[in-house]
Amino acid sequence: MNEAGKDKQAASVTRRGLMLVLSSPSGAGKTTLSRRLLQDDRDIDLSISVTTRKPRPGEIDGHDYRFVDAAKFAAMVKNDELLEYAEVFGNRYGTPREPVMASLKTGRDILFDIDWQGTQQLNEKAREDVASIFVLPPSIVELERRLRMRAQDDEDVIRKRMEKVGEELSHWAEYDYVILNDALDRAFAQVRTVLTAERLKRHRQPWISSFVRGLNK
Amino acid sequence: MNEAGKDKQAASVTRRGLMLVLSSPSGAGKTTLSRRLLQDDRDIDLSISVTTRKPRPGEIDGHDYRFVDAAKFAAMVKNDELLEYAEVFGNRYGTPREPVMASLKTGRDILFDIDWQGTQQLNEKAREDVASIFVLPPSIVELERRLRMRAQDDEDVIRKRMEKVGEELSHWAEYDYVILNDALDRAFAQVRTVLTAERLKRHRQPWISSFVRGLNK
Repeated sequence: MNEAGKDKQAASVTRRGLMLVLSSPSGAGKTTLSRRLLQDDRDIDLSISVTTRKPRPGEIDGHDYRFVDAAKFAAMVKNDELLEYAEVFGNRYGTPREPVMASLKTGRDILFDIDWQGTQQLNEKAREDVASIFVLPPSIVELERRLRMRAQDDEDVIRKRMEKVGEELSHWAEYDYVILNDALDRAFAQVRTVLTAERLKRHRQPWISSFVRGLNK
Repeated sequence: MNEAGKDKQAASVTRRGLMLVLSSPSGAGKTTLSRRLLQDDRDIDLSISVTTRKPRPGEIDGHDYRFVDAAKFAAMVKNDELLEYAEVFGNRYGTPREPVMASLKTGRDILFDIDWQGTQQLNEKAREDVASIFVLPPSIVELERRLRMRAQDDEDVIRKRMEKVGEELSHWAEYDYVILNDALDRAFAQVRTVLTAERLKRHRQPWISSFVRGLNK
């Protein structure tokens, strides 16, 4: 939408935000795609997860994750404060429900960089608010090469991630869209297109009902 | 998708086509949008309807419509040869099923310029193949102005169409997407975006299943 359109809509209508899910095996490029989308589109924010994982060097609490201990995480699960949660390599990750729902109401979208377990839970709890994309790597060789380029993981973690690739891949059929990331620019354009189209879904434009009543007067 | 990507896909994969439905009250711009889309996108064809309406000057049988008599139309309905059909202003219109299904199988999309009655029937018969867009006019005044600019209809038909506007509008909530046509270029870009995104839907990419099996080898 151009700027004039944006102003017009902002003045008269409010869109309902959506949850955009990007999933893929590690190394298929979803983190790169996520970063570009967040830079490129001012109407979408990254979901900030809570995790029991220890911070990596440079990670900031409340920006990259909210870092909590196991007891706090368990309490959030018990109090149904999490929209989804999962355990990966012995660490727990989850999405607090309140900030997401508040964003959707004000017409902002939330980006989720989560696995198939989280996606299933989002779909169970809020199917109408979710649009999910599975990102496929062009090949397993390329995927392992990308994983090794990320110097942050040691060999043991890389091996574990490679073992997990097959399991992750097996869940592609649970997603709304599938994008093959064999060329980053094209894959990114496709992610943008899906997001733009999903914003045009009828049930995300609650202003229409009164607009049509106005037309009929 | 760029040309390289197209070649790659053509070589290894076949997409399933989709039925793109554009509906709106007369004068909201869906015919203009349809024409531009058909010019702009080589992978979509207009559905050719059968009708009992008399040809207008310049209309070509088999190109604009297949013109049939009432008895032939009734036989097609009886033999379940129509994907959808409706009566508008005393004339019957319908979509033959066979050519549409053949196109979808070869990965070509079909554009439908039909009303809410036809859209309901398409959804009943082939929900997974349908993506439907309702085009809203910016105002009733503008809509009537556009109708009057089309010199082809006489005053009586214009009045009938205006009476029908309210009924047409009342069905917007049955569509997947809603687009406000207050600026043609933006509305057209939105139609293109919906089409491109719908082509990325997982169930329209039957090549993925064997591709993922190949990755896992």
